[in-house]
Amino acid sequence: MAIVYIGLGANLGDREANLRTALDHLRESGQVAVLAVSRLVESDAVGGPSQPRFLNGAARLETDLPPHELLRLLKAAEYRAGRRPTGVRWGPREADLDILLYGNRVIDTPDLRVPHPLLRERAFVLGPLSELAGEVHDPVTGKTIRELLLELQRRAWGHRTARLLESRAAMLDYVAMVKRNRFTLGLVPTMGAFHEGHLSLMRAARKACDKVVVSLFVNPTQFGPSEDLDRYPRQLERDLALASETGIDVVFAPPAAEMYPERTVSTWVTVENLSETLCGAARPGHFRGVATVVAKLLNLVRPDVAYFGQKDWQQTVVIRRMVRDLCFPVEVRVEPTAREPDGLALSSRNIYLDAGERKEATRLFRGLGAARDAFLAGERSAAALRAKVLAEIEGGPGVRAEYVEVVDAETLARVEDLSGPAVIAVAARVGRTRLIDNLLLGGAA
Amino acid sequence: MAIVYIGLGANLGDREANLRTALDHLRESGQVAVLAVSRLVESDAVGGPSQPRFLNGAARLETDLPPHELLRLLKAAEYRAGRRPTGVRWGPREADLDILLYGNRVIDTPDLRVPHPLLRERAFVLGPLSELAGEVHDPVTGKTIRELLLELQRRAWGHRTARLLESRAAMLDYVAMVKRNRFTLGLVPTMGAFHEGHLSLMRAARKACDKVVVSLFVNPTQFGPSEDLDRYPRQLERDLALASETGIDVVFAPPAAEMYPERTVSTWVTVENLSETLCGAARPGHFRGVATVVAKLLNLVRPDVAYFGQKDWQQTVVIRRMVRDLCFPVEVRVEPTAREPDGLALSSRNIYLDAGERKEATRLFRGLGAARDAFLAGERSAAALRAKVLAEIEGGPGVRAEYVEVVDAETLARVEDLSGPAVIAVAARVGRTRLIDNLLLGGAA
Repeated sequence: MAIVYIGLGANLGDREANLRTALDHLRESGQVAVLAVSRLVESDAVGGPSQPRFLNGAARLETDLPPHELLRLLKAAEYRAGRRPTGVRWGPREADLDILLYGNRVIDTPDLRVPHPLLRERAFVLGPLSELAGEVHDPVTGKTIRELLLELQRRAWGHRTARLLESRAAMLDYVAMVKRNRFTLGLVPTMGAFHEGHLSLMRAARKACDKVVVSLFVNPTQFGPSEDLDRYPRQLERDLALASETGIDVVFAPPAAEMYPERTVSTWVTVENLSETLCGAARPGHFRGVATVVAKLLNLVRPDVAYFGQKDWQQTVVIRRMVRDLCFPVEVRVEPTAREPDGLALSSRNIYLDAGERKEATRLFRGLGAARDAFLAGERSAAALRAKVLAEIEGGPGVRAEYVEVVDAETLARVEDLSGPAVIAVAARVGRTRLIDNLLLGGAA
Repeated sequence: MAIVYIGLGANLGDREANLRTALDHLRESGQVAVLAVSRLVESDAVGGPSQPRFLNGAARLETDLPPHELLRLLKAAEYRAGRRPTGVRWGPREADLDILLYGNRVIDTPDLRVPHPLLRERAFVLGPLSELAGEVHDPVTGKTIRELLLELQRRAWGHRTARLLESRAAMLDYVAMVKRNRFTLGLVPTMGAFHEGHLSLMRAARKACDKVVVSLFVNPTQFGPSEDLDRYPRQLERDLALASETGIDVVFAPPAAEMYPERTVSTWVTVENLSETLCGAARPGHFRGVATVVAKLLNLVRPDVAYFGQKDWQQTVVIRRMVRDLCFPVEVRVEPTAREPDGLALSSRNIYLDAGERKEATRLFRGLGAARDAFLAGERSAAALRAKVLAEIEGGPGVRAEYVEVVDAETLARVEDLSGPAVIAVAARVGRTRLIDNLLLGGAA
């Protein structure tokens, strides 16, 4: 008995019915057991004249027939499904049945090559096959079908344009494919307007995960009524190009109605005690909006790892807490803040700054630097460190500190003396633009 | 080239090191490629004298060696790992390497039988093997390794005691096993004190899913300060026995500190607009507690389907809304209310009723029945239907209605005239005991 995998294709007539007829023919021959059939997927025809789209699948057979006799039976099944010789190479057809794998056999004859010579080239073959035989080895390369699919997808997508998905349904389909194939998955949640900070998160994810999804969603529920939701920078084309260069696989950019189909939001995720201080004091409801949309994204994308930037420290603390409290099965990784050469933390909001403001904006980083120098020199009083930062920030025109706080790195509770891991967090207005930055002190991750 | 799966076992010396040595021997022979090794799992020794626990695994090899020559090489590898002939059958050993599968070959000779004759009987063989070869077929039965594992687990657990898991870590391990094997998973969240209502949910899940987890957790965050958290019935032994009879696989019964390790709860899931009416009015915070704990359970157990009873209609509406809004990848199924012969809805709180109260308690069901009769006779006025229910409920001593409402089945908004699917929901005090019931009218599911 041999286990054989065959490919199924059809692009004429009632395609699904034709494939069913062909499989029935195999069953009725008494020579073949049809053990499993994959889902059927659509694909464009490759080569040949212009023709309708194909429906493709794979089936697992068990048979005593030697390969060439099985081939004859497949031809008879194609005939039974309505296919007649046309003389057109790569032409349209009612049914197309190919031997993909025959046990571990390697066969190279004029009329039959097994494994199928295009096996490693065609996603519409490897995708359905991987569903049935993800762990089965291609006897030529020694790789599993799943590994071949991953390689093919990387060749096809990895160095070209990231795929743009705009609906939840398309995202769920993609995730189902990833899970079926047991690929590891990274998620980089963003609001777009990519800068080096975002790109470094994408590169970290690219390095660690089989597949990487970057979500790009300017989430309305985390903006206050008087905030910059409407003028927040949106530049999808440029973002797609930048993200593609990092080699990520998918940009998930749903319209707002896709993420919030109801007029009013009913379900909120709130993280108490961490959401009300620092930025939360000036932006009531902000972290509730962040936690809620991240919960939605985690459930939609189901990543193994999610990546966030250290610049939004309070956000990372809120998300980590939510993930732990609600038992989300995801690892949260926080990557260092990316900075301009003069130290200014990269932010999508930096584009709001005019030339003079841009120059003054470095005061946040310089203030934090002064505090770090003092800390390294032995200063442990939070009040003294705050004073250093404040003096630098408010030492110039047009910059006004909103807060400068020294807090515990996990609980965000104010500390007086720095014993454990702490964060100095800063928010300031530079002109009309609100900027934030922070610095980890004393061994925080 | 053949793909071969071997079993690995050891229960003497440094077990992991021995197995590594044996695999190195295979590699260094130049005759075998070791393509993959499963995780190693612990198991009790089966048969033979009393002896230490085994460490077991599986490996995927590629080789040109014929089966008997491979067998000789495995023996040499066992020797290299320290094993010496003892003459003791089923005795302890430094290393044990067995051919489990050799391509699709079936071999039956005195010194070698392939597939391994105990393959289908041993979870400690099938478990690791399924990780590497879940989709590979056993050439004797034609079933996949995954199917064999599922069958074995059903034989072993299905009609015996459900496994009791009490920690999140154990639950996560179990779920990882389920996901690795692509079993479908059902979750029945409960607070224990099982009655026929719970058991009917378990049977529905047993019918539809490969694996079923019943969570049993008296969730403190959904009880108000003056409610019956302390006297809520707890009877784990009895519950385990009842649940086992339905054939479910796992009872997950964590202590409170396992679900809420922090002193105060930080992260809440709230479902606005649905949580404040009906029972929510009398039990502020109740549905916030329910939504939060169900979110945790969904993330821990990651079921494909979650089962709830119709008796707690408002709860099912809140959960459905949360699942939709936060995009939880789970299907919510609601099963009909189970009732006593006289119509009283089954509830764990019915045990609080004394004999007289028990008799009066049927007034809720009789009131709803009167409303249904009027509805079927053409009555469409919500006020008229409410009056029917109220007259019946308050027609006897010791029963006091808390609310009787006719609401939209999805939005829970009050309706005046019944055009679409609606629910009549009732809460009443019978003595000190609070009971609820409801009735769907006009084609609600």
